[in-house]
Amino acid sequence: MTSPVSLFDQEIGRLNDVLCAINLLGWDARTQMPAGAAQMRGAQVATLTGLARGIATGQAMRDAIARELDHLDDRPGSALRRRAVLDTQAAIDIAGRIPEKLVVEAAALKTKAQQVWAEARAKNDFALFQRLLERTVDIQREIATAIGYVAHPYDALIRQYEPGMTLADLQKLFARLKAGLLPLIDTARGRPQPRLDVLERTYPVDVQKRFALGIAQRFGYDLKRGRLDETVHPFEISFTREDVRITGRFRENWLPGGLFAIWHEAGHGIYEQGIDPSFSRGAFVTDILNLYAVGGTSFGMHESQSRLFENRVGRSHRFWELHYADLQQHFPESLGDIDVETFWCAVNAVRPSFIRVEADELTYDFHVILRVEIEAALIAGEIAVRDLPAIWAEKMQTYLGLTVPDDTRGVLQDVHWSAGMIGSFPTYTLGNVMGAQLFAAAREVPEVAAGLHNGDYLPLTHWLNHHVHRHGRSRTPDEILHDATGSGLDPAPYLRDLTEKVALLA
Amino acid sequence: MTSPVSLFDQEIGRLNDVLCAINLLGWDARTQMPAGAAQMRGAQVATLTGLARGIATGQAMRDAIARELDHLDDRPGSALRRRAVLDTQAAIDIAGRIPEKLVVEAAALKTKAQQVWAEARAKNDFALFQRLLERTVDIQREIATAIGYVAHPYDALIRQYEPGMTLADLQKLFARLKAGLLPLIDTARGRPQPRLDVLERTYPVDVQKRFALGIAQRFGYDLKRGRLDETVHPFEISFTREDVRITGRFRENWLPGGLFAIWHEAGHGIYEQGIDPSFSRGAFVTDILNLYAVGGTSFGMHESQSRLFENRVGRSHRFWELHYADLQQHFPESLGDIDVETFWCAVNAVRPSFIRVEADELTYDFHVILRVEIEAALIAGEIAVRDLPAIWAEKMQTYLGLTVPDDTRGVLQDVHWSAGMIGSFPTYTLGNVMGAQLFAAAREVPEVAAGLHNGDYLPLTHWLNHHVHRHGRSRTPDEILHDATGSGLDPAPYLRDLTEKVALLA
Repeated sequence: MTSPVSLFDQEIGRLNDVLCAINLLGWDARTQMPAGAAQMRGAQVATLTGLARGIATGQAMRDAIARELDHLDDRPGSALRRRAVLDTQAAIDIAGRIPEKLVVEAAALKTKAQQVWAEARAKNDFALFQRLLERTVDIQREIATAIGYVAHPYDALIRQYEPGMTLADLQKLFARLKAGLLPLIDTARGRPQPRLDVLERTYPVDVQKRFALGIAQRFGYDLKRGRLDETVHPFEISFTREDVRITGRFRENWLPGGLFAIWHEAGHGIYEQGIDPSFSRGAFVTDILNLYAVGGTSFGMHESQSRLFENRVGRSHRFWELHYADLQQHFPESLGDIDVETFWCAVNAVRPSFIRVEADELTYDFHVILRVEIEAALIAGEIAVRDLPAIWAEKMQTYLGLTVPDDTRGVLQDVHWSAGMIGSFPTYTLGNVMGAQLFAAAREVPEVAAGLHNGDYLPLTHWLNHHVHRHGRSRTPDEILHDATGSGLDPAPYLRDLTEKVALLA
Repeated sequence: MTSPVSLFDQEIGRLNDVLCAINLLGWDARTQMPAGAAQMRGAQVATLTGLARGIATGQAMRDAIARELDHLDDRPGSALRRRAVLDTQAAIDIAGRIPEKLVVEAAALKTKAQQVWAEARAKNDFALFQRLLERTVDIQREIATAIGYVAHPYDALIRQYEPGMTLADLQKLFARLKAGLLPLIDTARGRPQPRLDVLERTYPVDVQKRFALGIAQRFGYDLKRGRLDETVHPFEISFTREDVRITGRFRENWLPGGLFAIWHEAGHGIYEQGIDPSFSRGAFVTDILNLYAVGGTSFGMHESQSRLFENRVGRSHRFWELHYADLQQHFPESLGDIDVETFWCAVNAVRPSFIRVEADELTYDFHVILRVEIEAALIAGEIAVRDLPAIWAEKMQTYLGLTVPDDTRGVLQDVHWSAGMIGSFPTYTLGNVMGAQLFAAAREVPEVAAGLHNGDYLPLTHWLNHHVHRHGRSRTPDEILHDATGSGLDPAPYLRDLTEKVALLA
């Protein structure tokens, strides 16, 4: 086969192969590699990233696209194919607008900035990191200008992670979330604290893994096409739909850290394992703009699947009615004297806190809103990097009523900015909102509702396979939402779920 | 740094990065990957191999070499550097002689041929594999012609694995080995068989691993820069000297399969971990001709290190005098009633057999000699592929007095030919011979001899580090042998060791 059609698939396939190799270098570095090899691994990733960019923006790819467009007409399936080619062309066009010089500087800065950020966080000294963050913001502003935008420069950065989303859309969404969530937080805070000590008893790690993986498999995560490894910061990574790996971090004296992270990553994994096999190596398999191998349609839609299984299912009351006895049997010594209500309240405890990744469901989005407001103002040049600690403190006081004690528990807590990722935080909240919308629509189907009631999660997963997963990157988040739920982005189901939960927690 | 010097290092570094990624794809496929991902992994390896070849033979590399040669003069260290550049140039020149068409066909054929070979072996049906093996031989003959040779086309293939070696040299070596080994085999066969049942008792796998790794660390294998995983066919693989991994295969009812393979692979690993850090990413780090990442100077020299630790040390009488009590403590139920002499005789049992990888030390080289004679005759066009089963049977009868029962235990047993590897078998015997030479020279040093007597293996390893490992690919096997032992390739020490062993086995 040397038809023009296959030439395009071949180039995309080659690109995808290199990106998969980069994924493997990353997975290995975080789960298997001897620590001493880190520096050389960095060089390997840099070289392969350069080669991937070379393929993505190279003449062979441009020729393949041109020939493909010449030959696409009214053949069956040509609408989908035309879209694949045009999407690829648009992504390459955007990637091509960013000057090579800027890409190289950003890559070099990232390595240095992550080191310095880690040091600054350890020493609780924002000033150490300030200069590099200033340069990072400048580079991202230049990238935003190069990519181009209509209303706000931040829009150019958001689209790299969430196509179709803008700052204006986010601001509307955030206004509704603030209005809905703040009263719920007030209600929850007025109540006595649940017994968190229960979660700090002794939970042997291998038993945690066994229980968590058993549930993940019931959700539909296929271990024959996946595996679980341990790491410091849990993540999911895929190489093809036949090889989708998850990772977790387990602590013997903190049960939820292991369980919920596994179900979160399994949600990501179920998405990747459910992508249509026809998107395995050709069209729609790579995120050219971000140079990631295979994946869902956006960061937000991906997060919708992980949050759905972690929170909508895994933190629901019915879930623990069904599975708590099994959990007790896994940990008879630590849970024998604890009833299901006490346990359920503990894993749903609402308590405003400083650290985003430890936040409960009600306060989580304020951690995101705060960061997005800061990012947009930084990119617009409305605030200066040196003022960030003060701005952070002020917003934490406003939204969560907390006084930030230090930069380590404030502006220095997340890795994203040191990695040059500005514009990705919104996708965490978008994931919460979309996950609740999809969950609500799925429950309208009697088999799904019955399954959730009986502990059979496969009808839910099959519904998600059909409406979300199988499409891979061939549909936008908005198209998927409209098709699956009948409407665009809408926080109502999310707020309704959390309102119900707060009522139940009484 | 953008000096001409660093441009060369940069291109070699980029090539090495891609080869390291290929190594990781291979290691992962053989130790971690879900089975269903095999096909896509094949595509990933093929793409990266193409990119590596592109870098190795590309204009940037040629320019870098030309500029390097222009600027090399009388600066300190320039002799070594000139050699690195000239070696690279020569390897690229040879690689460039092989037409792209042939490389692509060989790669495609390899995937298919390995599948069909596995099927033919399972069905014990050479005819299934014959046609693909014929094409493989034809391609290798074309490659030999493209590379060029003086005396025999097989020489062109050998040099890909063992620079400086020729068929004529091998024939001289084999004549001496036959003369030395055949009488020893006769002597050994005249004696009563040792008690092999001892090795087939119950040996829990995790205890095997603990004991084997403990010894491997005493040999000098550094687990902080390495790791052990399980696989079907054990191998060693490295990504840098800081990340050198070994694999093993353990069966509960066959003790030597686990132990000796670990020490064999640890020997390979000790070599890679001992390469001078200055050869970490620039000159001398890649085998351009074979497109392998970092490594020792040749396949034969590499095998010398693995066979040295496996056989010269690990199967020696003194070794078990020192460590058998410890082994008994690891397996009190299976070894409590067995004395060290019985055990030592069992792990050194001489019994001509059909399968190379299970052969004892005395008969092993005949498995190699047989293959090399067949390969040379095939490449010269003196014999036909269809006659291989008959030729194989005849040679097994001649050398080892065995009647081959079927093709699975004959011509189909090894993977090499299906992978297009013709010319690599000699390096197994070269490894045996060179390993014994180096071991004899090392024992001349009093500290090394004392260490071997006392169970302190680090003086031996340090001697090997100094004379062999640290040089990486910056010296030829012949230079290393002359420097370390005062002579070129010489089977006398090897035959002397085996003669002594047969005497002890009486």
